[in-house]
Amino acid sequence: MRVVVPFDPRDPNSRLSPVLDADQRREFAAAMLADVLSAVRTAGGAPEILSTAPLDVDELAGVDSEIPVTVDDRPLSAAVNDGLADELPTAVVMADLALATSDAVERLFPAEDDVVIAPGQTGGTNALVVRSSGFSVDYHGASYRDHVAAAEAVGASVATVDSFRLAVDVDDPEDLVDVLVHGEGAAAEWLREAGFEVVVRDGDPVVEPND
Amino acid sequence: MRVVVPFDPRDPNSRLSPVLDADQRREFAAAMLADVLSAVRTAGGAPEILSTAPLDVDELAGVDSEIPVTVDDRPLSAAVNDGLADELPTAVVMADLALATSDAVERLFPAEDDVVIAPGQTGGTNALVVRSSGFSVDYHGASYRDHVAAAEAVGASVATVDSFRLAVDVDDPEDLVDVLVHGEGAAAEWLREAGFEVVVRDGDPVVEPND
Repeated sequence: MRVVVPFDPRDPNSRLSPVLDADQRREFAAAMLADVLSAVRTAGGAPEILSTAPLDVDELAGVDSEIPVTVDDRPLSAAVNDGLADELPTAVVMADLALATSDAVERLFPAEDDVVIAPGQTGGTNALVVRSSGFSVDYHGASYRDHVAAAEAVGASVATVDSFRLAVDVDDPEDLVDVLVHGEGAAAEWLREAGFEVVVRDGDPVVEPND
Repeated sequence: MRVVVPFDPRDPNSRLSPVLDADQRREFAAAMLADVLSAVRTAGGAPEILSTAPLDVDELAGVDSEIPVTVDDRPLSAAVNDGLADELPTAVVMADLALATSDAVERLFPAEDDVVIAPGQTGGTNALVVRSSGFSVDYHGASYRDHVAAAEAVGASVATVDSFRLAVDVDDPEDLVDVLVHGEGAAAEWLREAGFEVVVRDGDPVVEPND
């Protein structure tokens, strides 16, 4: 299965700026991308990077330099829909799924439905498989609901993959807790090596530098 | 399978107070409890409520009045550990899993491991099954990690259930987005009937009254 992984190298994970500076966010985003690409490949997928800006893959630690890169600076949905027009079936898996494992990604592939969706936290769509040419994506807002409606509108069947590992996209500092607790790859390792750990503040786990 | 569902009727879901007043939070908490109990029963479990305060089940809309209630005003972990001492295997499923379906709950039951854990967002433990008498719970902090360590310390095998529906516990207002997008039961219906809807603000889905 062809798997498109959208990636924005320009100012990645800006919501993490209370915890990580710009250089750290670039390194951490590359580590998450490496984890996603690795999980996709181990699950039997053929990953491609869809980048918003020119990208030197050799400079991304842990990313195989042979992985194809397409550069498209348009908004995410337009670029993905062009990718869907090229070839079907195609899967689209977000680059910031730092908990994704090959077992979790494998759950996307076997279903025969026209559209298979792994929801993200807070109404989003973190991964999907498209087998039907009439379907297009729109990631704006509560996209899970919109994608189900868009599939139904063209008579496409829909299946949902109920996965915590695919539901966690790293947006906010509190998501880093789950990266350290559940992550098994480069992103969790990067956080640990950069000196971050989970501590409990007022009863809630948070991620802080351990100095 | 005996399934203990801890419930605190005193000031439930206090973090939702920016959106729901105290009466609304009590009604909404009862609706979530009814959904969890229903999903457990349909999945083949025998639910019991473990309440921090005396509870008139007849006053909880949608909750079967025949469901056994144990009142224990101690902290959650102590009360649950007493429940585990009574009988094994026992499952413990949190009352605020508003996305839980019987399909999701069923995934907890078949594994033969001594401890089966469904993680919650931000390091937590939202559901678990205990078959080993040496294991006890401690819900403080990043409890998923602590529960895995506690099981390993007594030589108990551990399995994890990778479920988005079991990972979402309703703590904060943003969690209400997922209740409206994915919920199939009384909690989602309560929100809709109370006039709440998902709208997009600055690109992010949020739940607001529709007036």
